[in-house]
Amino acid sequence: MSSPDLPPVLVVGLGLIGGSVALALRREGVSVRGASRSEQTLHTALEIGAVEGASLDVREEAPRAGLILLAAPTRTSIRLVPTLGGLASPGTIITDACSSKRELVSAMDALPGEVRAVGGHPMAGKETAGIKAAEASLFVNTTWVLTETARTDDWSRATCERLVEACGAKSLWVSAEEHDRAVAAISHLPLLAAAALVLAAEDCDSDLVWRLASSGFRDTTRLAAGDAQMGADLLLTNSDEVSAAHSRFARKLAALIDASRENDTELLAELLQAAASRRRELYRGEQA
Amino acid sequence: MSSPDLPPVLVVGLGLIGGSVALALRREGVSVRGASRSEQTLHTALEIGAVEGASLDVREEAPRAGLILLAAPTRTSIRLVPTLGGLASPGTIITDACSSKRELVSAMDALPGEVRAVGGHPMAGKETAGIKAAEASLFVNTTWVLTETARTDDWSRATCERLVEACGAKSLWVSAEEHDRAVAAISHLPLLAAAALVLAAEDCDSDLVWRLASSGFRDTTRLAAGDAQMGADLLLTNSDEVSAAHSRFARKLAALIDASRENDTELLAELLQAAASRRRELYRGEQA
Repeated sequence: MSSPDLPPVLVVGLGLIGGSVALALRREGVSVRGASRSEQTLHTALEIGAVEGASLDVREEAPRAGLILLAAPTRTSIRLVPTLGGLASPGTIITDACSSKRELVSAMDALPGEVRAVGGHPMAGKETAGIKAAEASLFVNTTWVLTETARTDDWSRATCERLVEACGAKSLWVSAEEHDRAVAAISHLPLLAAAALVLAAEDCDSDLVWRLASSGFRDTTRLAAGDAQMGADLLLTNSDEVSAAHSRFARKLAALIDASRENDTELLAELLQAAASRRRELYRGEQA
Repeated sequence: MSSPDLPPVLVVGLGLIGGSVALALRREGVSVRGASRSEQTLHTALEIGAVEGASLDVREEAPRAGLILLAAPTRTSIRLVPTLGGLASPGTIITDACSSKRELVSAMDALPGEVRAVGGHPMAGKETAGIKAAEASLFVNTTWVLTETARTDDWSRATCERLVEACGAKSLWVSAEEHDRAVAAISHLPLLAAAALVLAAEDCDSDLVWRLASSGFRDTTRLAAGDAQMGADLLLTNSDEVSAAHSRFARKLAALIDASRENDTELLAELLQAAASRRRELYRGEQA
């Protein structure tokens, strides 16, 4: 693949996502520098070749970047938007990789007129956090949401699409509102449900639950093993949609529980069949 | 490995579990016959060498078996216990592979005195159902619960332990009550939660949720892709414990939702951290 012709990129926050984007871009010949609050992380990022240079102070790095990708925890990234807006050179594009969009896009809308901004959310990840888990191929064939802001123009739109393409992913333009509602249902609530399943099993106060837990419990609770601080951080920026998703979920679960308590075989099988058909259709062709 | 010295086995119900047990036992040189209500299944079982002989009518097969393993859906298996008790030769051992134990063990308790019976539940499986998904190695290094009944004696206890060992699994003796409480927490409720997550996402009435669903949603909802009839069947035999597990779960989930609505970063992070630590400890050393 030829060079995607991207301006020099600054990745702010070199965890799993930031580190993986940096690795993917470096592989495509893009100039990438990094900023992190951890010296150890900067050291690792340089060592694995994710960045050509890096600094503990984002203010040192911001003025020379042509594209700044915010990949710090969500609330940190939101706080950094106005700071970076004041430091960036005119024409610089600011984008992000955070998993909720409304608050972040509001902050981008308020940027100075000479800065460009596009919201973003790569729909990929894994439970192991940190730069050491970063992979250049993390985003290959995945969807990368892009969101328009008041500071988006044709050039920043096209540049962000090239960034996504350089990572091997597919762009999908979605409004911040639609995005936040959808991820509440398919990502944020599942994380909370996974955590609640573990906590409820712990509540049984019996060693047997852990001895009997097998592959079903392992898969259902996988999301609960992720970084707790990052999880809390993102949930707090989407709590209204998560709460609405929880209400829909609680109603469906109560219907299933009621059907089994009332010995209503037909209704229970019908509900489980509807879920099974939808689930199978969704991941058809993939290893279940 | 030498032959585990088991009497001729009859497997009743040749789906994923029954078929896998049959394959594992045949590999150890045990004589295995099968019974199924589906001619196609019998044909496949013979073809893949899971059984040496088979019949559509369990009444034809029962009298000549030394050990009968019930691997039909749970309520069918429960109904078959007295039928088989009346057909089995004196000294025959009846065991099962069903995922709830109290109702089944009650039925075994009522068997005639000359029949032996031990409850059982191999803690292994996968989402693909049916004889075609059967594997001789399905139970290797997994836990196989054995449960005493009023018809268990030293000989039937030792024979069932050899059956488990022949499948490569480890026996764990647990009472029916303890078993049913534990599997409600780590298997039955997770199945319902997975189904409810899919149904709630469907309720969003937006194609976007399906376009954005990635590996996190796939893993969390994997159990929902299983056979709906079998799921309904087993839930109905453990509905009281599933309902109790649901209450514990609903409280934990509500606490998480409340913490995020009230913007209580510290409490939310603490709850997620408790879940993450427990989950990581449980599957330490395994691929997350």
